[in-house]
This record gives sequence, structure tokens and C-alpha cells, in this order.
Amino acid sequence: MNITTQELRSLITPEGELRLTLEDVDVRAPGPDEVVIRVDAAPLNPSDVGELLGPADVATLNTSGPAGRPVTTAKIPPQFAARTATRMGKSMSIGNEGAGVVIAAGEHARHLVGRVVGALAGRMFTRYRKLKVNDVLVFPEGVSPRQAAAAFVNPLTALGMLSTMRRERHTALVHTTAASNLGQMLNKLCLADGVQLVNVVRSAEQDKVLNAIGAKHIVNSTAPDFREQLIAAVKTTGATLAFDAVGGGPLAGQILAAMEEALVADAPAADQYGSRTHKQVYTYGRLDLAPTTIPPSVGMAWGIGGWLLFSHLARIGQEATQKLRERVANEITTTFASSYTREISLAEALDPDNIRGYRRAKTGEKYLLVPSNE
Amino acid sequence: MNITTQELRSLITPEGELRLTLEDVDVRAPGPDEVVIRVDAAPLNPSDVGELLGPADVATLNTSGPAGRPVTTAKIPPQFAARTATRMGKSMSIGNEGAGVVIAAGEHARHLVGRVVGALAGRMFTRYRKLKVNDVLVFPEGVSPRQAAAAFVNPLTALGMLSTMRRERHTALVHTTAASNLGQMLNKLCLADGVQLVNVVRSAEQDKVLNAIGAKHIVNSTAPDFREQLIAAVKTTGATLAFDAVGGGPLAGQILAAMEEALVADAPAADQYGSRTHKQVYTYGRLDLAPTTIPPSVGMAWGIGGWLLFSHLARIGQEATQKLRERVANEITTTFASSYTREISLAEALDPDNIRGYRRAKTGEKYLLVPSNE
Repeated sequence: MNITTQELRSLITPEGELRLTLEDVDVRAPGPDEVVIRVDAAPLNPSDVGELLGPADVATLNTSGPAGRPVTTAKIPPQFAARTATRMGKSMSIGNEGAGVVIAAGEHARHLVGRVVGALAGRMFTRYRKLKVNDVLVFPEGVSPRQAAAAFVNPLTALGMLSTMRRERHTALVHTTAASNLGQMLNKLCLADGVQLVNVVRSAEQDKVLNAIGAKHIVNSTAPDFREQLIAAVKTTGATLAFDAVGGGPLAGQILAAMEEALVADAPAADQYGSRTHKQVYTYGRLDLAPTTIPPSVGMAWGIGGWLLFSHLARIGQEATQKLRERVANEITTTFASSYTREISLAEALDPDNIRGYRRAKTGEKYLLVPSNE
Repeated sequence: MNITTQELRSLITPEGELRLTLEDVDVRAPGPDEVVIRVDAAPLNPSDVGELLGPADVATLNTSGPAGRPVTTAKIPPQFAARTATRMGKSMSIGNEGAGVVIAAGEHARHLVGRVVGALAGRMFTRYRKLKVNDVLVFPEGVSPRQAAAAFVNPLTALGMLSTMRRERHTALVHTTAASNLGQMLNKLCLADGVQLVNVVRSAEQDKVLNAIGAKHIVNSTAPDFREQLIAAVKTTGATLAFDAVGGGPLAGQILAAMEEALVADAPAADQYGSRTHKQVYTYGRLDLAPTTIPPSVGMAWGIGGWLLFSHLARIGQEATQKLRERVANEITTTFASSYTREISLAEALDPDNIRGYRRAKTGEKYLLVPSNE
């Protein structure tokens, strides 16, 4: 067996140029506990797009090279150069997760040939990928690679939010950017598990999307009575924990203040320090790069902090993580189903118009990379 | 035995007036497990001043009534009236902590008569106070009530900071408003326990105060190179935890960003999410009522939240709290010694000039109430 794959690479040069290319890389025969998969589908998650483009200015995108072998460049604005120091000059392989069919296997993994598997292993934006058997998730018969493509980042994040909620003794949740792929998944999961969820959206359209899948509590942050709506929803559900992908700006602080107001309305504070019930916001993204602002009206029993899927999985341990993975495999076409608005090949992923498309992808829009397509 | 005490009271009327008075209250004979103390000294902590004055406008202070029985009033600005809802119309007793001599005792506590004891029991701004034996801390012979007055709030806060540090697996600390009474105490404690402490001060004078007591790391937040100084100090000490009494404004975020920069300088981040080492700021005060702002340069492994002494003690439990109290009793004239810039009687505490004095008390200034003085 001798396979050459084409792998998507991202390089930032010391001169401040981003270079996106497809590189030929040999895939050696699998060892006894390894498989080689044909990568049929990989989602373009925000974290992938972040790694792929860094802080490049997409208005300066330019492409050259033969069809099927584009070389796409863009400029890194000088004020952001410092942020790229640790990756400068390194040709980086991209793609957190993806799925495909096993086309070759080592002696302990022969039973997997022909099966659809997925992995959260990095370097997935490639035609063929060698993987350790322990790293792959095997899907039930009948699940397609497209259905299996996004079985890790969003499903484990949604499950991780609920396990965080239980570990830290909260009983209900608030979620922002609630109409996203992840937000829709979280709604299905909360409905399945009987957990009350307050969905914060930014438009009437997003409200409709969530309504259609059965979401019970939806508040629109652009409505003039957002504050009152939010306090009422938090009071009804008893939510004292929020997950926020916006990160910057006033939203996280508004959520904490609404929780405090709901708590104090139920049980007036005995002293100047407000409610003793802990209120927590975790930010798992930073769509808004403005500073996060927290008003003084949050009382004293509050916290806000970053939340990273990989750190959460490390905290809960391998056994608990494995249970979450198995649930995802079994419910990948129901609770954890993803949908995409666009499918593109590796070469198309380097097209400037497509890049601008998946970079600005609005809530609810999502691109699927199909590496095995020419 | 029949004693009448004079107790300092604070009342906010539904009309938006603050009324400070001295009320006569009978102190009944102590039960078997009770003592009566003559309160000889009680510190005016910021938390006491906050309860005493609420959001009153000190420019409107006015006093009347006979000498020794003043009635002092001030206006509550209408925009702050909502904050006073839970205490409106209630005549509140003030004074978290204090110390004095036992003048009467129930049958199980006779051995305490004549001893100097302290308590964190509330209602301490009074001439005589009946207390449960379990609530008093008995000081070694030779300790005066003035020395014993502030044996709880500041000492337990300083000790609580170190126990939080150990419980949450940090090894060094940053402290803001570092030249305060509490900050000086924390320096002595950290020197005694071999813990590295970064002191953030706001003036060259405060720098001198801390230098004189042996502080090793002092950075001035008003210096033009504050950021660089802070990064260097955090790097040298390895501090990943900060306690901040300022609360609002950019300081907490600057500390987190400096910690992240120091960590990444030591071990470049593998990905866009920055260092995986958790960085934490606890705010235990809110001297600045502006929103707290957190920049995006803090990475993803960070947290900020409120920290309240009483909640911390509840978390560590009675036995651990008792150990802390005993350490304070034994080191009240050394590690946990407080100093005061002014001593005032109960009646003097209602004088408008004195009120303005202890309310604006700068870092390092502190008032001691001496209730047993006429």
C-alpha cells in the first residue's frame, strides 16, 4: 500500500503573509493498531477557521496556481502580528474533526475495514488520514460519513455544558448564540434530558428557528425589553449558569445581573452583598473582541471564566469522556444531527469567495468540507 | 444585674432619609453559656461603613440633638433608593467585630470574667454586648482590647486568601490596594509562611510603607511601565491568583492579561487558545463602581469572580475555621497586628466631619471606635 494524500496547510510567514496551500504527503501503511481512512466529510468549525486564517485581513485575499492546486495568500495586519508569534514559519495542518470510510487497517483492526468512523485528531482537512484505533469512533451501520462528520466538537461541547451544569450543582442553563448548530443541538439534548434552557438569540428569524425545534424559552437580545424578558426567563427556569460564545461586550454581565435580580426578587438579600447563590458564566468563544464588561449589580456570589472543551474532558477523565462519545455515536442522526448550508472540496476551501463565506458564516450557516471530492 | 447599653443604629426611611442614632437597649443577665462584655474597641471596617451609611450623600449630613445623644441625618439620592429596599424602615444595629473585657458570665463561663475576648457577631458598635461563649475568641493574657479589636475580618480574610490559594493549587499571589491594613497584614503573613506576594499599589508613598515592612515585590499601577513591571513580577513569583478590592475598571483584566503573557513567554502556547494554566482573580471589594473589564488577551483558561469571607469560611467548614481563629489569637500582636490613625467614641462616630473622615479613609488610614469611652 502506498497512498499520497493532499493536505490543507496554513503558514504565516515572518513577512506577515498568510499562505494556504494543498501539500502532497505520503501516508505509510498502518501499524497493527492503526487504520487509514478516506476523509469524506469534515465540518468547518469556527475553531478551524480561526486556525486556518489567523488574524489575516480577508479583504487582501488573492489566489494563483493551477486549478486543483491553488495557492491563496492574504496579509496579516501589522498590529496583529504579535499574536502569530508562536506559529510563525510553521506549515500547520488544519481540521479538528471529520469522518470517513476505513480503507486499510493493521492486523488488530481488520474488522474495521469498510466501516464509517470519525475522529477528533487534528489534520483532518486531508484526503486520507492514518489514525490510531483508540482515537476513532465507530458508527452504527447505516450512518454516512456526512452524518458522522461533526461527532465531536459540537456534540461533546453540548454534552460538556450539561456535565458542567451537573458537576457544579446548577439545574438549568442560559445559552447565547442559541440558534447556532451547537445551540440547536443543545436544545434537542436539553429536551431529551429534561433540562430547562434559556435561549438568547439576536433576531426574530433565529427565534423562529428555535421555536420550530421546540425550544421553550427564547429571549431576543435586540428587543427593547431584553432585560425584563431575561429576568423573567431566568426566574422561571432557575438558571444560574450560562454558556456564552460572544465573549466580549456587555452580554455576559447582563446575564449575571439578570440572575442576581431574579434571585433577590425571590429571596431578598439579608445584607449589602446580595444573594449567596453562585451565578456563573462560561465563555467558550470570543465572537466579539471588545472587552467583557461586568456591572456592579451582580452581587458578590458570581464568576465568569473561559471554558475549553479539551480542558473539560481532561477534568472529567477518560471513562466519562468515553461514555459521552458512545452516546454521540448512538444518537448521531437524531439528538446530535448537524446540517450544512454548503459543501466544498479542499481546493474550493482555498477560493477567496468561499473563504469570505465560511468566515462570516452567520448563526445557522455552516460549511462542510468534502476532502474526498476532486 | 441590669445593664442598659447604648447601641449605634442606622435607619433608612421610606422618604429616603438616613438616620443615625444611639438607642438605649437593655442587656439581660447572661444565660449559662453566655457572657456580657464591655466593648472597648471595634474597628470601622469598609463593610461596616457601607452598612452604616448605605448610599447616602455625605454632602447632605446634618446633626442635632443633645451632646452625647446626637441624631444625624443625610439624604439618599433617589437613583440609589432601589438598592435600599430590603433594609428600608428597619433600625439596623451595626458593627461586625470588636473586643472587650468580660464583665458578667453564666455558670459555664465564670472562668472568663475579666478576660479580654473578641467576637465577629454583629451589633458590636455598642457599649455592652451579650455573646454566646462559642462565638468569643479568648486572647492570651496581656493582649489589650485595642490590640484584639480587629481579630476577625482582616486576619481571617488574609488567612482565607492563603487557604484559597492552597485549595485551588496556586503557589503565589497578587494583591491590589496592597498598602491597606489588610494588605500589610497579608505581607507579614506571606513572609511568615514563605509565600511570594506581588503587591499592587497606587502611589510611591504606599510603595514606601510596604518596603518598610519587608515586601519584596511591589508594582505601582500609576507608573508608565506598570504593564511590564507587573508581567515581570508575575513571572518571577509564578503568581496565577489575585485578590482585588478595587473590583471595577481595567485592573483585574490587566492582571489576568499579565499572567497570561508571563505564562506564554515561559511556555509558548500550542494553539490559538493560549496557556492551559488557569489564572484567577477574586474581587472581595468594589471600591470602583465602574464595570469590570476583561480584555481578550487573557487566553481561555481564566476566571474572575466575587469572594466573600463568610462564604469562604462556610466552604472550609467549622474545624478549619477554628484553626484559623486560634492562629489569630496567638499572633494578634505580631502577624495580625492592626494600627489606627484615629480613635472615636460612639457619639463622635455620628459627627458629620468624622463620618466624612472615615468614609473617605485612604489606604493605610483606619478609625477605631471606642464604645466604652464617654
